Amino acid sequence: MRVLVTGERGFVGSYLVKYLKESSDEVFGFGSVDLRDQEKTEEVVIRVKPEVIYHLGGISFVPDAERNFKETLDVNVLGTEHIAKACSKLSHPPTFVLASSGEVYGKVKTVPISEETRPKPANNYSLSKLFAEEVVRKKSREGIVRGVILRLFNHIGPGQREDFVVANFTAQLKSGRKEMKVGNLSAKRDFSDVRDVVRAYRLAAEQGSGTYNIGSGESYSIQEILDKLIQISAREIEVVQDPSRMRGPEVPEIKADIAKAKRDLGWNPEFSIDETLSFVWG
Amino acid sequence: MRVLVTGERGFVGSYLVKYLKESSDEVFGFGSVDLRDQEKTEEVVIRVKPEVIYHLGGISFVPDAERNFKETLDVNVLGTEHIAKACSKLSHPPTFVLASSGEVYGKVKTVPISEETRPKPANNYSLSKLFAEEVVRKKSREGIVRGVILRLFNHIGPGQREDFVVANFTAQLKSGRKEMKVGNLSAKRDFSDVRDVVRAYRLAAEQGSGTYNIGSGESYSIQEILDKLIQISAREIEVVQDPSRMRGPEVPEIKADIAKAKRDLGWNPEFSIDETLSFVWG
Repeated sequence: MRVLVTGERGFVGSYLVKYLKESSDEVFGFGSVDLRDQEKTEEVVIRVKPEVIYHLGGISFVPDAERNFKETLDVNVLGTEHIAKACSKLSHPPTFVLASSGEVYGKVKTVPISEETRPKPANNYSLSKLFAEEVVRKKSREGIVRGVILRLFNHIGPGQREDFVVANFTAQLKSGRKEMKVGNLSAKRDFSDVRDVVRAYRLAAEQGSGTYNIGSGESYSIQEILDKLIQISAREIEVVQDPSRMRGPEVPEIKADIAKAKRDLGWNPEFSIDETLSFVWG
Repeated sequence: MRVLVTGERGFVGSYLVKYLKESSDEVFGFGSVDLRDQEKTEEVVIRVKPEVIYHLGGISFVPDAERNFKETLDVNVLGTEHIAKACSKLSHPPTFVLASSGEVYGKVKTVPISEETRPKPANNYSLSKLFAEEVVRKKSREGIVRGVILRLFNHIGPGQREDFVVANFTAQLKSGRKEMKVGNLSAKRDFSDVRDVVRAYRLAAEQGSGTYNIGSGESYSIQEILDKLIQISAREIEVVQDPSRMRGPEVPEIKADIAKAKRDLGWNPEFSIDETLSFVWG
């Protein structure tokens, strides 16, 4: 398969590129081209002539998007449109796998969250992801791409930015400091292994159509994750609540219903939370 | 009521301002402020301190939006966010009535179209309207505004730009030319009277919540509309098919289900299609 990956230098992107190459795909990156530049974006698509596009590039850190909605719309929505629109110049509509987010569901009241749950974005990032999804669905209806949308829940692995909670805890543990600062520990989240996630991407490209939740289907409290990480690290550390890390009222539990991905893609998460956290610790 | 109207110089906006003033509202316009200018937009909102905002401003002509998606996102989506965000500075969350469009439903296969029909935008304009809706819903969930979304179907009256079909036919009839150029006449559309539409806006502000279709609940083919207009005009004119006016495959019939607006808003279209076309003819 000739594949084009955007965001190929990012956390998930770099794991995906490695996995695709191992799977004998011919992988092209998007390089330093700015997705907001329609002409240059089109040039890449026309030059690469991909059979599959994995679109992971964009603004992915919630506070960044919150600070600048305009830039987020430009990069995440217009950027997606630029890539998808360029596909109309290809002789065959490529499969377009969009990295969306479980964040689109917003402040859910019941779990697990199926794809039928109506999205209620609670921040600019998730709003932009929902918009990007609509762009892909429209281009898909027009026959310009074969769109597949993945709504990714929390996913972890070595190499993630330390703005994300598990990477942050790991970095604090590795720092050798006696004290570790934490925020709210009671919220339960769905953490999956980046190695499982990249398999889902490729299976989605091969046999997906429509929208899929990609998560572990399990949820653990941040407290449980922290306890497991401390145990794996075999370090002694004092856990201290840091008021600056406490966010406002958070959703108590987020857990993905991944039955559709299991059924349609034949995908199953292979790594347990303990294996994943050991992988994160390294 | 202290009300702020954007797009107050536009076709519907000017009828709305007139009607609101007749209803003893204290009406403020948005003037020449560019919705893309966050600071100036905020200044207007803070200065006016509206109890109700009727947001009609933006790019509303489909081919304009098709030519420039970025500008459409900036004006229609970011612009909506700028106004709604500014409302967080008010002491009380205003009612925010968004002019959306029946276009968001796209290429529907069955009529009448209820609000439960899943939107499938078929052009950039309707995509931007769907996004603006989501922005308003988000701000509404956050308690920053009390959002009401009106999905307007075709609406007509004197003063509409001649890009729109009925205004175009009328102008051709008035021109005194012997020949009239038309496109596809078989498509059936839901035409409502702009005077009915502006009543719906005010009722929506008073007692609406959520999303409402605003149309006539009837559909007429363009042929029927043309025949009626010619009869009203009492002119003799030859109707000629103009290939440049023929669009690609069009949706055969669009008709709004307006039961929800009737029930929740106590709104009923008062003008028959003949009365409306007589009004258009003048």
